[in-house]
Amino acid sequence: MQQYFVESNQTVEMGDHLDLGPQDSYHLVKVLRGQIGQEVIVVLGDQKYLARLVKNNQDCAQVQIVQTLKPSLTQTELPVEVVIACGLSKQDKIEQIVQKATECGMTAFQPLALKRDVVKWDQKKAQTKRSRLEKIAQAAAEQSKRLTVPEIAPLKQLSQWVADQPEDALCLYAYEEKAKEGDHAQLKVAIRQLQPGQKVRIVFGSEGGFDPEEAAYLEAHGFRACSLGPRILRAETAPIYALSAISYALEL
Amino acid sequence: MQQYFVESNQTVEMGDHLDLGPQDSYHLVKVLRGQIGQEVIVVLGDQKYLARLVKNNQDCAQVQIVQTLKPSLTQTELPVEVVIACGLSKQDKIEQIVQKATECGMTAFQPLALKRDVVKWDQKKAQTKRSRLEKIAQAAAEQSKRLTVPEIAPLKQLSQWVADQPEDALCLYAYEEKAKEGDHAQLKVAIRQLQPGQKVRIVFGSEGGFDPEEAAYLEAHGFRACSLGPRILRAETAPIYALSAISYALEL
Repeated sequence: MQQYFVESNQTVEMGDHLDLGPQDSYHLVKVLRGQIGQEVIVVLGDQKYLARLVKNNQDCAQVQIVQTLKPSLTQTELPVEVVIACGLSKQDKIEQIVQKATECGMTAFQPLALKRDVVKWDQKKAQTKRSRLEKIAQAAAEQSKRLTVPEIAPLKQLSQWVADQPEDALCLYAYEEKAKEGDHAQLKVAIRQLQPGQKVRIVFGSEGGFDPEEAAYLEAHGFRACSLGPRILRAETAPIYALSAISYALEL
Repeated sequence: MQQYFVESNQTVEMGDHLDLGPQDSYHLVKVLRGQIGQEVIVVLGDQKYLARLVKNNQDCAQVQIVQTLKPSLTQTELPVEVVIACGLSKQDKIEQIVQKATECGMTAFQPLALKRDVVKWDQKKAQTKRSRLEKIAQAAAEQSKRLTVPEIAPLKQLSQWVADQPEDALCLYAYEEKAKEGDHAQLKVAIRQLQPGQKVRIVFGSEGGFDPEEAAYLEAHGFRACSLGPRILRAETAPIYALSAISYALEL
């Protein structure tokens, strides 16, 4: 069943009517050809409700709350808070990362300008990209039945972002050199120590990886290098591997 | 360092010259602008060698073997044999699956015609697709530094393929209904029982998932339903999750 996020400042009761946003209205009415009475899931705050379409207007659709869904069946968030921070990759790779990392439970996405990035974003491009990534994250959160939409942070320099991290966060960076050395244990050691609610930060290079100075800077600021196994993963595959490993260890 | 697969029926010794195939010659000489003396890794059988470019012809490049690389640093294959079988998805999703599942260690790929697939491949399309997927698998195996290129099997019907599976294989299928029931343990239970060298088969639906008859057929033939966690993953994300989980459990 299709799921949509709805914003409302009020408490919601059975029978209440709620408006969908323009993007979701268009999706439900135009793309899915939603008919009056069609059931959807709506998410308000951290609660999911069963709702029915009562106004099939493609600019402003309206649904009516029918049932509160059980929390046990709707808990779809990772038990830890994982921020994925990535260098800027070519083409639509950042979009692929945001889409698939959202499905895999990422809490927030931080684009980073790294030395070996083959693309640069100027201020205007960074803004355009951010809006686009926000839409991708919302659609992916709805499709994967999440309770929250990952935040897309504005582009930052590595040093600017590293300085802002909470002291109690588990901080890692995916470093190919570790894989080449045959030392693959660090990620598992780190994941095994995770407590519910813990903050996790994982940094990934773009196609070019990290400059040694950046790796040294991360190490000096408490980030631990980890391998993602013996094969060299593409920039857009690495975050999915890490999130899948966290999900496998904590959710299955 | 770039890696290429080389075919040769002979034993290779230090100083031997080897021809790269036309696709790899073009890649090294034209795309990477490889100069005489440039170092690459070549894979013959299950052994990796350091080699140097000695003839930079873009149709037929030649390298010379310089050094045998240590097996401990070149063991990049999953310790189990995982065949990924998938329904036919729209657009380039099958290509994404083959590329990323190759990086994540898949042994072979089996395209399956399932009832809810939104696309169909006729005989001609199946052949074209297979050649294209073979090229993608080879490039991804080289990029991720694997020792083998995953085999791309010809398109089959589900029943035709299921009947062919070895009796001792661990057979699973990713079933969304399991996720909805909140039962997420099966994949972990299965992975924990894996022995080195064991054969694993995992079936994934396309966007439409499995028809209940197909799920019943798989169950009747010893395939166990498993959830990939509480979020609903896209057709192209699910195989990567499963392979990442296997790698995390067995390789890290």
